[in-house]
Amino acid sequence: MQYNYPGCLITLEGGEGAGKSTQIAFLRDWLAARGISVICSREPGGSPGAEEIRSLLNLGELDKWDEITEAILINAARRDHVVRKIRPALMRGDWVVCDRFLDSTLVYQGAGSGIPLDILRTLINMAVEGLRPDLTLILYIDPLIGLKRIKRRKSKKTRFDRRDSAFHARVANGFFNLAMTEPERCALIDATQSPKRVAMEISSVVSNLLKNKIKYKN
Amino acid sequence: MQYNYPGCLITLEGGEGAGKSTQIAFLRDWLAARGISVICSREPGGSPGAEEIRSLLNLGELDKWDEITEAILINAARRDHVVRKIRPALMRGDWVVCDRFLDSTLVYQGAGSGIPLDILRTLINMAVEGLRPDLTLILYIDPLIGLKRIKRRKSKKTRFDRRDSAFHARVANGFFNLAMTEPERCALIDATQSPKRVAMEISSVVSNLLKNKIKYKN
Repeated sequence: MQYNYPGCLITLEGGEGAGKSTQIAFLRDWLAARGISVICSREPGGSPGAEEIRSLLNLGELDKWDEITEAILINAARRDHVVRKIRPALMRGDWVVCDRFLDSTLVYQGAGSGIPLDILRTLINMAVEGLRPDLTLILYIDPLIGLKRIKRRKSKKTRFDRRDSAFHARVANGFFNLAMTEPERCALIDATQSPKRVAMEISSVVSNLLKNKIKYKN
Repeated sequence: MQYNYPGCLITLEGGEGAGKSTQIAFLRDWLAARGISVICSREPGGSPGAEEIRSLLNLGELDKWDEITEAILINAARRDHVVRKIRPALMRGDWVVCDRFLDSTLVYQGAGSGIPLDILRTLINMAVEGLRPDLTLILYIDPLIGLKRIKRRKSKKTRFDRRDSAFHARVANGFFNLAMTEPERCALIDATQSPKRVAMEISSVVSNLLKNKIKYKN
């Protein structure tokens, strides 16, 4: 399927504690200040049905779901999110800023848990039907620093936060490799910098995207 | 993956109101009376995680999930059911009698809802990893008669029961074709007969399976 829509999909990716939430709030305000209609979303979840699936995924013991069941559930949630929320928004001309998207599946379930990439790509394509982010911002952080940051948080840890440090190291490596493999779509940003400095880098990358979008329209 | 296990998997399939529950209770007692360790299960569901997914599937509006999301969710539940319950039981040497299994996906989501069979087969294989029933009993009933039967039930109708009659006609046709396509595995049984008569036919088919199982063991 070929997509041709007036909106724009920006996804933020990165390990735990990379500061995605802070930067999403910044990016939403930055786009809104330029007159762009923007909605923020997250995965797993983002639509009512997908949020119900998210609850099944996050609660319970670490071994509640075997790894392939988990990957299937994540992509059921993703399909609901794409069909009910992201695709309609892009067709209306909105910009969608999403906290995690398909790359998280390739990195967490693939690089992290070792599920073969062909299984993951098949599932992802059932969910997104060819949709790809216009831009993916990868907030890269050393996993040891990231995990220290989330230890300070008061919110309850999810099943993902409780994995061991070797898993988080494979995930960090997966994000780094992703940025190297798809440099046109992905921007690798050093998330150990100050939030202000990270926001400056993001606004610079998104400015370029905005210029290109306007150029194509005219 | 090749399966070689001492147990035996029998699945019951059929449209709404075909009398599967009655026959499963009969078959359980019939096998137990022959000294066989038997567990009964059902799909979607059958394991704690899969039952949670079943609740997501059955409740809510008819269009709560789009059809492909529904198929993905059903196979997430199936994988949990196979990994946590069916496979361990078969490896222990138990017989498993299951109310619906993979054929329901091919018939309801394929013949009924029109999802391409290659998508469904890919999903099913992620869930079952090559596991196939030793015997599938198809309780065949004209959909108009079946739907009249379930109207008399007092229990709440699920999202599936509320589909239109054209959908149920495609499903009935799908079950009939399945029996014609895989006659070694599938036994087509006329479910408009009296429950006693249906039970007699089932015990006759299962007797043969039992003889073969004993023959292979010796």
